[in-house]
Amino acid sequence: MSKKVPYRIYLSEDQIPKSWYNLRADMKNKPAPLLNPATHKPLVYEELIPIFPSACVSQELDNDTRYIEIPDEVREMYKVFRPSPLIRAYNLEKELGTPAKIYYKFEGNNTSGSHKLNSSLAQAYYAKEQGLTSLTTETGAGQWGTAMAEACSYFGLDLTVYMVKCSYDQKPFRKSVMGVFGGKVISSPSSTTEVGRKILAETPETTGSLGCAISEAVEKAVTTENCRYVLGSVLNQVVLHQSIIGLESKTALEMYDEYPDIVIGCAGGGSNLGGLIAPFVQDKLTGKANPEILAVEPASCPSLTRGRFAYDFCDTGKITPLAKMYTLGSGFIPSSNHAGGLRFHGMSPILSQLYYDGYMKAISAEQTKVFEAATLFSRVETILPAPESAHAIYGAIEEAKKCIETGEEKKILFGLTGTGYFDLTAYQSYMDGTMTDYIPSDEDLEKGFDSLPKVD
Amino acid sequence: MSKKVPYRIYLSEDQIPKSWYNLRADMKNKPAPLLNPATHKPLVYEELIPIFPSACVSQELDNDTRYIEIPDEVREMYKVFRPSPLIRAYNLEKELGTPAKIYYKFEGNNTSGSHKLNSSLAQAYYAKEQGLTSLTTETGAGQWGTAMAEACSYFGLDLTVYMVKCSYDQKPFRKSVMGVFGGKVISSPSSTTEVGRKILAETPETTGSLGCAISEAVEKAVTTENCRYVLGSVLNQVVLHQSIIGLESKTALEMYDEYPDIVIGCAGGGSNLGGLIAPFVQDKLTGKANPEILAVEPASCPSLTRGRFAYDFCDTGKITPLAKMYTLGSGFIPSSNHAGGLRFHGMSPILSQLYYDGYMKAISAEQTKVFEAATLFSRVETILPAPESAHAIYGAIEEAKKCIETGEEKKILFGLTGTGYFDLTAYQSYMDGTMTDYIPSDEDLEKGFDSLPKVD
Repeated sequence: MSKKVPYRIYLSEDQIPKSWYNLRADMKNKPAPLLNPATHKPLVYEELIPIFPSACVSQELDNDTRYIEIPDEVREMYKVFRPSPLIRAYNLEKELGTPAKIYYKFEGNNTSGSHKLNSSLAQAYYAKEQGLTSLTTETGAGQWGTAMAEACSYFGLDLTVYMVKCSYDQKPFRKSVMGVFGGKVISSPSSTTEVGRKILAETPETTGSLGCAISEAVEKAVTTENCRYVLGSVLNQVVLHQSIIGLESKTALEMYDEYPDIVIGCAGGGSNLGGLIAPFVQDKLTGKANPEILAVEPASCPSLTRGRFAYDFCDTGKITPLAKMYTLGSGFIPSSNHAGGLRFHGMSPILSQLYYDGYMKAISAEQTKVFEAATLFSRVETILPAPESAHAIYGAIEEAKKCIETGEEKKILFGLTGTGYFDLTAYQSYMDGTMTDYIPSDEDLEKGFDSLPKVD
Repeated sequence: MSKKVPYRIYLSEDQIPKSWYNLRADMKNKPAPLLNPATHKPLVYEELIPIFPSACVSQELDNDTRYIEIPDEVREMYKVFRPSPLIRAYNLEKELGTPAKIYYKFEGNNTSGSHKLNSSLAQAYYAKEQGLTSLTTETGAGQWGTAMAEACSYFGLDLTVYMVKCSYDQKPFRKSVMGVFGGKVISSPSSTTEVGRKILAETPETTGSLGCAISEAVEKAVTTENCRYVLGSVLNQVVLHQSIIGLESKTALEMYDEYPDIVIGCAGGGSNLGGLIAPFVQDKLTGKANPEILAVEPASCPSLTRGRFAYDFCDTGKITPLAKMYTLGSGFIPSSNHAGGLRFHGMSPILSQLYYDGYMKAISAEQTKVFEAATLFSRVETILPAPESAHAIYGAIEEAKKCIETGEEKKILFGLTGTGYFDLTAYQSYMDGTMTDYIPSDEDLEKGFDSLPKVD
């Protein structure tokens, strides 16, 4: 008989992975290359280094190196908040009355409140090593901006954060916490960039989007000396850094001879999901195992479930490279769903390719259902989840309920990416009954698709 | 050579203590008994059970039983968020350039955001077991109220929370998070109780205090059927429940052959401090070791450093039993310092007796200094501390700085009681430079002392 699994499985410090795992090395169909938006030719290293730190560009373009060593300086800082716990949700199982075994990897035990610190530390480190003095970025829910502010504070870099307007207004304290770490926060769209002024002129009432904020941050970076742009999701390098989530989860489960039947993550730009599933997808790609992989996205911004697999801009202002991904069109501006971190029109090219090739499934969820799941979860598991993370909880609960019907003792692993401490406005609106669901009509989607660039 | 200490020491689930340690059993001079405010006679069991759950009263009065078993139901729930990590502050040591070794016990990894859940679960469990249907309590910073809401939600009890007005106004999201757990939150003083109406009539501009809120919660409990009152600090039973903090800390240090030269905690009502120091004070009382014990309190509410050791009411409305403690007088209403959880005129009778007998030292700190320490700490340790906890950080940093002078490799242990996610208004005012320090004048204190009851 196997050992009784504790509520919380903590790895030792020595068990923190020494390398990130690069999923692309095992993919038969590689994610399509980024294209130059003017020439539609694949972008090469030299074209990307004015935008991103150079080492990050190398990682972005590397489809072959299976394991990439984590620099000592980054690994030392990982030790301050990692390994993160893998938690067996005994209380949730009991509350649901399910025979399923539910596990979740909790990434919220650092002040950024989420997994984002895994990648921000890497990117800030590479920027510092290169001799850069400042960085720009965007943030949706505020998690990435906070993580980047922490990382820049630690490595001694200046940071400007363009924060999606609707989150900026909903989460005044996010601005403060970034400020504690010395980050400068600007509501986006803003008048500080050309693209921001243009968007404001065209749609003065916009509540912004990740796409707008990316445009502004990129413009700011390329027009500032010794400065580069960093991004917290979508990119291949970010999925690479986040693989630490999946690697730790797999090791922790192995200690108890467990292996998931299904792995579930919330899907916005894809960084947490891509990182969590990486070693499990490796097993699928190499024929070692065949777990189900499930992405849960908001019904209001359904890039996987209702989007098109096409080349598109990553931003609204159409100044970034083109990425081949599931997208709603860069012209699609999502409704102000409370899961700000999931309000992105596109999806990681790696995840998009996996989804296209049938390695991953996806569902969408309406936000009131998601908050219902979040509230149930927090009452028994003592963690108030971020709305983004709650999408994965919703997915896990739905799977666990199916097991009640079928009697299956399915092993469910999901990613709990962060805490909801900064999302109480959203919880309050759920409790007040004023939260609404928005599902875009087919016509809304068509308008977004009209914005897709024509690429042969 | 001893093993290299990791950044985070996690005990296994099996190492969660099976019993709380009752410090009173080893004290030569026991804390003075609670007195009936009318007769000035020591209160007995029968007089207290209309106020508190009966099992809590037994623990309150028990000066003799050294170890009290933790009920299985409570210990099972402890496992969901415990053991909490003991963290070696390598980064802080490096930042300060100190030869000191700094350790901290972090209690913020649950949605209450603090150590308070250790006692709230115990009290709610005993209430449920007794067949009660509802509880009342008060909260200062909101940590205790949240912890109590979580516990009541888990054990299926109704809860009414009287929240100190200045915190209620500063921390709107605290109300929301208690709401998620089904707690009913009322700003105190309120018009829902006689004592609240009286205080409002006398001082309509008051920002409230823990003392006021206690009065209201007690009145509500004793006038409601099948309801009792629970308190998150000051009481002997709470110090008992919180001993789990110190017990786990000591076990974790022993694994690396470490023993603290000094143990530091923030002091409000004394629950975290009393719990953290309990096993170390045991060593002092039994002659096994002699670590320094240091309490850090706010300069605006200096009960240990400037108070009197006397019998006093625990509340402003003078309806509670009398406790012998260091106090500023129940009539002392502290300024609206941002560390709402430390704004209490009195101090745990256990800690008061230890301080009086010379087992513990105390210092006070102005809040701008405390926030300076908190900001420094968060930038290197990835945890944004609650203002209350930051008092202990301030104390630890001061001690570590002394070691730079003396070259001593002092081992410092401090308690990091909670996260500052709900305290961003305070951090923002610190960053804006609008935060002020308030130190009561001798005349202010005299006015408070005038409110002390005359007890022979």
